[in-house]
Amino acid sequence: MPDSSPTSQKPVAIVMGSQSDWETMRHAEETLTGLRVETDVRIVSAHRTPDRMVEFAKGAREEGIKVIIAGAGGAAHLPGMIASMTTLPVLGVPVQSKALNGMDSLLSIVQMPGGIPVGTLAIGRAGATNAGLLAANILSLTDTAVRDALEQYRQAQTAKIAETPDRMI
Amino acid sequence: MPDSSPTSQKPVAIVMGSQSDWETMRHAEETLTGLRVETDVRIVSAHRTPDRMVEFAKGAREEGIKVIIAGAGGAAHLPGMIASMTTLPVLGVPVQSKALNGMDSLLSIVQMPGGIPVGTLAIGRAGATNAGLLAANILSLTDTAVRDALEQYRQAQTAKIAETPDRMI
Amino acid sequence: MPDSSPTSQKPVAIVMGSQSDWETMRHAEETLTGLRVETDVRIVSAHRTPDRMVEFAKGAREEGIKVIIAGAGGAAHLPGMIASMTTLPVLGVPVQSKALNGMDSLLSIVQMPGGIPVGTLAIGRAGATNAGLLAANILSLTDTAVRDALEQYRQAQTAKIAETPDRMI
Amino acid sequence: MPDSSPTSQKPVAIVMGSQSDWETMRHAEETLTGLRVETDVRIVSAHRTPDRMVEFAKGAREEGIKVIIAGAGGAAHLPGMIASMTTLPVLGVPVQSKALNGMDSLLSIVQMPGGIPVGTLAIGRAGATNAGLLAANILSLTDTAVRDALEQYRQAQTAKIAETPDRMI
Amino acid sequence: MPDSSPTSQKPVAIVMGSQSDWETMRHAEETLTGLRVETDVRIVSAHRTPDRMVEFAKGAREEGIKVIIAGAGGAAHLPGMIASMTTLPVLGVPVQSKALNGMDSLLSIVQMPGGIPVGTLAIGRAGATNAGLLAANILSLTDTAVRDALEQYRQAQTAKIAETPDRMI
Amino acid sequence: MPDSSPTSQKPVAIVMGSQSDWETMRHAEETLTGLRVETDVRIVSAHRTPDRMVEFAKGAREEGIKVIIAGAGGAAHLPGMIASMTTLPVLGVPVQSKALNGMDSLLSIVQMPGGIPVGTLAIGRAGATNAGLLAANILSLTDTAVRDALEQYRQAQTAKIAETPDRMI
Amino acid sequence: MPDSSPTSQKPVAIVMGSQSDWETMRHAEETLTGLRVETDVRIVSAHRTPDRMVEFAKGAREEGIKVIIAGAGGAAHLPGMIASMTTLPVLGVPVQSKALNGMDSLLSIVQMPGGIPVGTLAIGRAGATNAGLLAANILSLTDTAVRDALEQYRQAQTAKIAETPDRMI
Amino acid sequence: MPDSSPTSQKPVAIVMGSQSDWETMRHAEETLTGLRVETDVRIVSAHRTPDRMVEFAKGAREEGIKVIIAGAGGAAHLPGMIASMTTLPVLGVPVQSKALNGMDSLLSIVQMPGGIPVGTLAIGRAGATNAGLLAANILSLTDTAVRDALEQYRQAQTAKIAETPDRMI
Repeated sequence: MPDSSPTSQKPVAIVMGSQSDWETMRHAEETLTGLRVETDVRIVSAHRTPDRMVEFAKGAREEGIKVIIAGAGGAAHLPGMIASMTTLPVLGVPVQSKALNGMDSLLSIVQMPGGIPVGTLAIGRAGATNAGLLAANILSLTDTAVRDALEQYRQAQTAKIAETPDRMI
Repeated sequence: MPDSSPTSQKPVAIVMGSQSDWETMRHAEETLTGLRVETDVRIVSAHRTPDRMVEFAKGAREEGIKVIIAGAGGAAHLPGMIASMTTLPVLGVPVQSKALNGMDSLLSIVQMPGGIPVGTLAIGRAGATNAGLLAANILSLTDTAVRDALEQYRQAQTAKIAETPDRMI
Repeated sequence: MPDSSPTSQKPVAIVMGSQSDWETMRHAEETLTGLRVETDVRIVSAHRTPDRMVEFAKGAREEGIKVIIAGAGGAAHLPGMIASMTTLPVLGVPVQSKALNGMDSLLSIVQMPGGIPVGTLAIGRAGATNAGLLAANILSLTDTAVRDALEQYRQAQTAKIAETPDRMI
Repeated sequence: MPDSSPTSQKPVAIVMGSQSDWETMRHAEETLTGLRVETDVRIVSAHRTPDRMVEFAKGAREEGIKVIIAGAGGAAHLPGMIASMTTLPVLGVPVQSKALNGMDSLLSIVQMPGGIPVGTLAIGRAGATNAGLLAANILSLTDTAVRDALEQYRQAQTAKIAETPDRMI
Repeated sequence: MPDSSPTSQKPVAIVMGSQSDWETMRHAEETLTGLRVETDVRIVSAHRTPDRMVEFAKGAREEGIKVIIAGAGGAAHLPGMIASMTTLPVLGVPVQSKALNGMDSLLSIVQMPGGIPVGTLAIGRAGATNAGLLAANILSLTDTAVRDALEQYRQAQTAKIAETPDRMI
Repeated sequence: MPDSSPTSQKPVAIVMGSQSDWETMRHAEETLTGLRVETDVRIVSAHRTPDRMVEFAKGAREEGIKVIIAGAGGAAHLPGMIASMTTLPVLGVPVQSKALNGMDSLLSIVQMPGGIPVGTLAIGRAGATNAGLLAANILSLTDTAVRDALEQYRQAQTAKIAETPDRMI
Repeated sequence: MPDSSPTSQKPVAIVMGSQSDWETMRHAEETLTGLRVETDVRIVSAHRTPDRMVEFAKGAREEGIKVIIAGAGGAAHLPGMIASMTTLPVLGVPVQSKALNGMDSLLSIVQMPGGIPVGTLAIGRAGATNAGLLAANILSLTDTAVRDALEQYRQAQTAKIAETPDRMI
Repeated sequence: MPDSSPTSQKPVAIVMGSQSDWETMRHAEETLTGLRVETDVRIVSAHRTPDRMVEFAKGAREEGIKVIIAGAGGAAHLPGMIASMTTLPVLGVPVQSKALNGMDSLLSIVQMPGGIPVGTLAIGRAGATNAGLLAANILSLTDTAVRDALEQYRQAQTAKIAETPDRMI
């Protein structure tokens, strides 16, 4: 049975807890832009703007958002709290923290109790890139343009792996 | 643009590395069954049946599978290897290992390099349950029956939280 | 300048994410009861009852609560989320988790970003007991009965330490 | 029953194990100064000035101190040892250590045995800031000026979170 | 230059934070008894009997004690605090803790700041046994009877290692 | 019974997941070159060139390769996946990762399930050097030239250890 | 150039630090026996029989041993010390330790400095099994009977993986 | 009963695995020199000069050495192996390693099995300083000059702790 909710122009929301997370999270945006998927980028702090977070999370599906990517560091509560207020797929990116190198971010995001899922990616830049790709994977289930873009991304990725290392580097 | 691939009767595949993972992974199946989502459950070992894994991963989209849930423990390579051979969304469940309590499983699954995403859930039973829910979240983007089932699941989950603890337990 | 807010009959709220946390958190209640401090015990889940949590956290000071003790396990978001919505002192108790023995709970509670404090106690029963004691320490600043009870608690605690171990145990 | 102990001009003591901790602990002082709460800053080493520590801890309540913030790194015994000699609320700040990034500091402070509580904050600067805020939260129970300052701090903190990240940084 | 301090009948003190540590620390006593070294066993809690600890640590050398073995678990402050108040050699035994398996005990004991040394042994029973042996090693520098007993201990230890494992066990 | 497979000119293959691993893996090559053992160096990514990996692993023995050294970082699947498709000895080198310092790489490589062995070396440069040496140790079982080279390597290594440290460095 | 050293009847030595390691290490022996490779099983403790260890390690190649499997737990020095005295391939098995679950064993074995290699397997039983298999992989380079046995082992291993889990277990 | 072994001019031996450890271990020598205790500093590698290590360890007591300080990093076997061949007190200093920050060094040194003790100090410079102090503590049992020097060291250490931090730094 097809879903009748309005299709957003920007199917992926990328939210993060603070300006300092942008350096990491921009890799999610760049990846999706490269796949010609539009993104809605916002700062939403679980701790410093809890009301903004609640409003965002509860309204996201109505806004036409299909996938939410949330990045945070330390006691990273943003992805899990958003997930508690929506049934949209939420992807969490553990931002590398200063003292504990992101192990705190990772455990705070991934160890969610049964009932509220967050699909967690790797710590830092690789995780942000992969959150973009996983969002695109999800969109590709119903959007062949995204599917084609992903196939090309994969082929290009494979093609640029040389047979042998450049020993001059 | 709508996708023209054949719609599977069983939109979610649940794969695991060995029989011993079933005790954990059955919670993914039970969760999806409770949401009236059909699942295709298989044993596929990255290490002991690599050919079966390659065949499964490369053919999954053509089979009509929409989401793959893969569980494994220790040096858990199954989710990442499947993800390297499909652009379907792959969700990874770290099975609790004997010596290191699943920390090895978690890091082996979540720390994927940029380019190949695995959405990772919590270690053990909670992670398997949440993999089922996240798969349903993804399906709910285009299937209002799943969306309704998820809303009911959430409401039931909230409703069964008592106001105060039962001190007799 | 004295505070004119209504004095609650129950100055300490003890909240926890689920029934299963009671086995740990009852030690906070028992400690406070032993000090003749009344407690208000509730189940409030950050993830499964987010609305109840918001309502509780925002209204706590008006209710006359002076200290909030919050216990949770795994990706333990409850103490930090409550702290984001009140300026009452919030004390966090990491409940011992199954796979990671509470290390995930500890890091999820203690590693709060600058701006939103949670005073974190030890993992498990000792932490719950100490949350009760720290709440009493806070109340003792303005309540000499609590101060006296704490002094007696300390003396009794010291007195029951034998000079030498009982080698028959 | 109101407490008749003399009100200190400086309700919060900030103590640390060595000069090198000042770089971290000054964030506690700056936070409290910003809230117009006076602080008494001292170097008190559990290991190198144990007598000074005992004298400080036992006399703190009589001096009119209401909250003690103690920072230390490595085998960080200062917060716990002070807590063993007073029933004032003691807040511990794990200073980031060289080899183990403060994980040793954190565990040495937070894992106190039942009976002697230390409210522990995050490793490093964020923890020092939050120790200042938690001390203010405690003082706000009886001092409406502190309460008002905290409310303004929170509002300012929320207000300065932009809607979207500055991509030029 | 020979030391003129009175020779104790009991050259080794074994102290521990609580009765529950005896199960571990008795292995230190048994080892020393087996080497015919007398021990003085006491419960001395850094947190619950701080005055007793100060008195013990400051008076130990005058009592004729030559080596102090201190065992504690969790935020294990006893060995380090004793070491801060004596120049006798202090050996620390990390008692295995419930949640973190003694990693907290180990780091709290071994990561002492420069200036105050604690010779730390392994977590649990092996560490207690070895604390007894290391104390004997120290005493053997001036006591040939202890030295002879140690040599016999070593020879017996070596002798009882079979050439091949007993496969029937 | 002697093996009749063709003897390769290059008995050791050194494979790695990406160009960035070369900085580490070149120490394997340099070590083997120093021992006059020829190496075949290739980039083979488990995730980005899975087909190349399968082809390489399945054909390695037929190519005359005797030992495979595989280096990878993060969720390091390359050594284990190659090992699942050959019965040649596979040696794994955990490349130091950015966030977790190679602990993720180490656990992803070493914690293989029973049935598929990977001989794992230390994280980073030392591990790459030792992978080269261990490959040579294996070749030395049937090649006295390699055995002699190894003996000389050991003697030179021992000889260059000074009796006392150079205090001027 | 062929090696002229005497061919042992028992090409693999399995050594372990104590009787208690047998429960783990017997899986190495059973695996090799299943592959019809003879093993020489001994107890050799780095710490309690250092002379026996030196004698064993220095003489192993002359005895005709081709591969040494060494298992130990805790501060596991046996594999590395043997490796320092032979150029035979040495495989290390970290035995699961009581307090730290084998993480200490693993790091003590795998983190060898450049110059002395130990091929390390997983913690516990899986590691012992795989040490046997890796030893056989090495022997298979020159022994087609072992190579054939390994191929059969792999095929049997793959064959016994069912397509789907047995849900009755 | 007095010991009749010859009194060495240099009662403390400081040994280390490589030149690179000197940067850490020189703090042990400097500390002892400051206390007017002579030291014998040598490079002795467990892995690269095993014969030199055996000779040193077995002969140390006869040479008149009273305390051995051994520093090593990574899979740090030197302290434990020396301890296995002497009944002199052996103190171990975990040198900070590159990838794992010395956690591997610490566990490899401290987690010795029952029977062979190593008194372990903190990771890095603080540990080296404290190894020097603990050695002096041991010598102080029979040498009042060392005891006096230690008392002065302690007093100077306490005296140089300012009352308040220098805020200009």
